[in-house]
Amino acid sequence: MTIAKKIKASISQSSMIRKMFEEGILLKKQHGADKVYDFSLGNPNVEQPEEFKRELINLANEIIHLKHGYTPNAGYHETRHTIAKKISKASGLKMHADHVIMSCGAGGALNVILKALLDPGEEVIVLKPFFVEYPFYIENYGGIVKYAATKNDFSLDIDSIAGAINEKTKAIIINSPNNPTGIVYSENEIAGLSRVLLEKGRALGKTIYLISDEPYAEIVFEGVTLPSVLKAYPNSIVAYSYSKTLSLPGERIGYIAVNPHIYEAGDLISALILCTRIMGFVHAPALMQRIVARLQDVAVDVKVYQKKRDLLCAGLAKAGYTFTKPQGAFYLFVHSPIPDDVAFVQMLLKKNILVVPGSGFGGPGYFRIAYCVDDATIINSMDGFTQTIKGCT
Amino acid sequence: MTIAKKIKASISQSSMIRKMFEEGILLKKQHGADKVYDFSLGNPNVEQPEEFKRELINLANEIIHLKHGYTPNAGYHETRHTIAKKISKASGLKMHADHVIMSCGAGGALNVILKALLDPGEEVIVLKPFFVEYPFYIENYGGIVKYAATKNDFSLDIDSIAGAINEKTKAIIINSPNNPTGIVYSENEIAGLSRVLLEKGRALGKTIYLISDEPYAEIVFEGVTLPSVLKAYPNSIVAYSYSKTLSLPGERIGYIAVNPHIYEAGDLISALILCTRIMGFVHAPALMQRIVARLQDVAVDVKVYQKKRDLLCAGLAKAGYTFTKPQGAFYLFVHSPIPDDVAFVQMLLKKNILVVPGSGFGGPGYFRIAYCVDDATIINSMDGFTQTIKGCT
Repeated sequence: MTIAKKIKASISQSSMIRKMFEEGILLKKQHGADKVYDFSLGNPNVEQPEEFKRELINLANEIIHLKHGYTPNAGYHETRHTIAKKISKASGLKMHADHVIMSCGAGGALNVILKALLDPGEEVIVLKPFFVEYPFYIENYGGIVKYAATKNDFSLDIDSIAGAINEKTKAIIINSPNNPTGIVYSENEIAGLSRVLLEKGRALGKTIYLISDEPYAEIVFEGVTLPSVLKAYPNSIVAYSYSKTLSLPGERIGYIAVNPHIYEAGDLISALILCTRIMGFVHAPALMQRIVARLQDVAVDVKVYQKKRDLLCAGLAKAGYTFTKPQGAFYLFVHSPIPDDVAFVQMLLKKNILVVPGSGFGGPGYFRIAYCVDDATIINSMDGFTQTIKGCT
Repeated sequence: MTIAKKIKASISQSSMIRKMFEEGILLKKQHGADKVYDFSLGNPNVEQPEEFKRELINLANEIIHLKHGYTPNAGYHETRHTIAKKISKASGLKMHADHVIMSCGAGGALNVILKALLDPGEEVIVLKPFFVEYPFYIENYGGIVKYAATKNDFSLDIDSIAGAINEKTKAIIINSPNNPTGIVYSENEIAGLSRVLLEKGRALGKTIYLISDEPYAEIVFEGVTLPSVLKAYPNSIVAYSYSKTLSLPGERIGYIAVNPHIYEAGDLISALILCTRIMGFVHAPALMQRIVARLQDVAVDVKVYQKKRDLLCAGLAKAGYTFTKPQGAFYLFVHSPIPDDVAFVQMLLKKNILVVPGSGFGGPGYFRIAYCVDDATIINSMDGFTQTIKGCT
C-alpha cells in the first residue's frame, strides 16, 4: 500500500464538515453564491479590527534586523512576556514568559500538548458533542479517546466525567465557549470539574491534566463571563488561538499557557518546546508573533456575532426549531425535527442550506449551524428552514 | 511521570546546535556581540529581496475578502497552480495544482509526508552526515531510522544505500544542497540512486519513495546545476521551503510536490492533505501563501553566499584546515584537526567561536560552520581559527 493504513482508514471516513463545504462549492456554481446558505464552516466573515490592519502595514514598513528570521522555538520572549502579563492579571497566577509557548493556532497547540504528554495507551476524556478533530489529535500520539456525556443543555455532567476516569486517564479536553454548541461553562461547573479531577487524581495517585481549548475565549455575549480555568485547577494547560479574536484563522497564530502550579512544570515546558520543534512547526509564524504582541487588548466586535445569534435564534424559534441558546462562539446546535440528523441535513440541502449533521460531532439528533456569515445569509435562509420543518410534521 | 517517556529521553539528549546557540547568548552578554563569532545556526542574515518587501506592503494594503481566513487544507489553488507550472517547466513533468500541497516550511512538509507514508516499524534511510531533525521526524510516526554512508567527499555511496534496503524499507531522504556539508548531488549520482531504488523495489515487489528535502534548492554556486529529482525518479516527493530562497525562515512557508507518476498518487495526495489538517498545521500561513505566489522567479542574491564561502574557505585553508568545498547552501563541514570533534569545538569556544560538532550530525571527526553571517564575523574569526589549529600540532 502507498500510504499508512491508519491514514487510509481516516480518509474514507473523511470529515462531514468538509463534505458539506464541497457540496456548497458545487451548489454555488449551479445557483449563484447568494442563493446558497452556507453555514458549514467556522471561517469568520467579520473583518479584522482596524488595529490589526494598521499594525500589519506598520510592520511591513518597519526596518527590523532579521525581521523574518527564525525565532526561538517557544517564540519571541517579548510576545510571551506580554501574554503572560495579561494572563496573570486575569487569573491571579504568577505567569512568566516561560509559561507561554507560541503555537500555530489552537490546533497546533493541542497537537504539541498531546505529543508532549501522552505515552501510547493513555486515555484522554472528550465530552460529547465534541470538536471533530479531537479524536484525530489524540490518536496521533497513540492516545485512546474516552467519551463522557454532557447534560441535556450541554453543561458539564460531572458524574459522567467521574465515571470515565481510571488509572489510564492522562487528561481531559474541554472547550468553552464550545464548538459545536456555543455553551459557556460557568464558574461553578469549572469548580466542580476541578474538584472531581483532584479527588480522582488523589485516589489514583496520579495527575489528571485539564486541557482547556479556548479559541473562542473572547467571543462571549452580554451578561456572560468566562471563568479562568488556570485559576480554578492547578494542573491546567490552555490552548489559545487569535483566529477568532482577531479574525485571522488563516495566519495560524496562538499559544500554549502552562499553569505554574503543575508539578515538574519545567519538564512540561521543555517537552512542549521540543515537540514544537520536532513536529516541524519549528515555531509559530514570526510576523504574526510580533503583531499579536501589539494587540493584546484588541478583539473583533462581539456585538456583531451576538446580533447574528439573536437573528438566527429568533427566526428558528418562530419556525418551530428547538435549541439551547448559545452564550458564546458562533455556533448553534439545533434539535433535528426528525431523529435521523443526516437525513434532515439532506432535506435542508434541497433548499440550498448547508449545515453539518450532529453525528459528525458525536451528537446525533442535532445539526450544527456556523453563523459566522453575513446577516443576509441568515435572513434569506429562513424560508428554507421554515419549509423544511413544516415538511416533517 | 508528567511527560511522555520518549519525549523525556529526547530532552536529555537535546540538540547540540541549540546548546551552542545558548552558549552564544551567554558569551555575547559577557564579551559583546561583535567579539563573538557565532556560526552555530542556519538563520540567514541576508535581507529579503526588495520584491518581497514590496509585496508584503502591497498585501498589507490590499482589500481582499477573507484575506486572513482559512484557506483550503492544501493551500490556495492559485498558489499551487503557479508552483506546479514552475516545476513542470523545470522537470518536464505534467504537474497540476493538485500535485502541490502548501506546508509550514520543509520541516512541516517532511513531517506531513512521513505521517502520510509510514506504518509503525517501516524503515527510512538517512545518509550520514544528516540534518539533525530527520531521526526525530521519522520516529514521530513509529518509523525506524536506517543509516547509510556517503563517500569521503560526501557524494552518494550507492552500494551503501543498496545495502541498507530491505523488505521493511519505505523511503529514503536525501538533502541536496546538503546540510551540513554544502554538497550538491550530480545528475549522474541521482540517476544511479534512481536505478538502485527501481531495481531493489522491483526485486522486493514494493515501492521505495525518494523524499528530496530541498530548502537550499536555489542556493547553488556558479558552475553548479541542481538536477531535478522529480524528473529522475518516478516515486519521488519533494519537500521545499522558501526559508532560504527568500530569507524568511521565521514565516514557515514551503510546499510538498508529489510526482504524478507515483502509483496511487491520488491516495497519497489525499493523505498529505488529511495529515496537514489533523496534525494541527491545518494549512500553511495564508498571507505567505499569497506572497510566494507572486515571487516565483525571485530569490536572494546567491553571489552574497558564494562570496562568504570563498572568504571562509580561503581563510581556513590558509590556516591549515581541510574540507570538501561546498557547491551550495551555506554550510562548511570541516575536518576536526583532532579526532575528538566535541573537544575541538570546546577549544574554538575559548576563542569565542561557535560551531557545531559533527557528532551531532552523525559525522564525528568534523565540525559544521554555518556561514550565513556577516563577512566581518568570518574575517574577524580567522585569528581564533588559526591559533586553535596551531595549538593542536
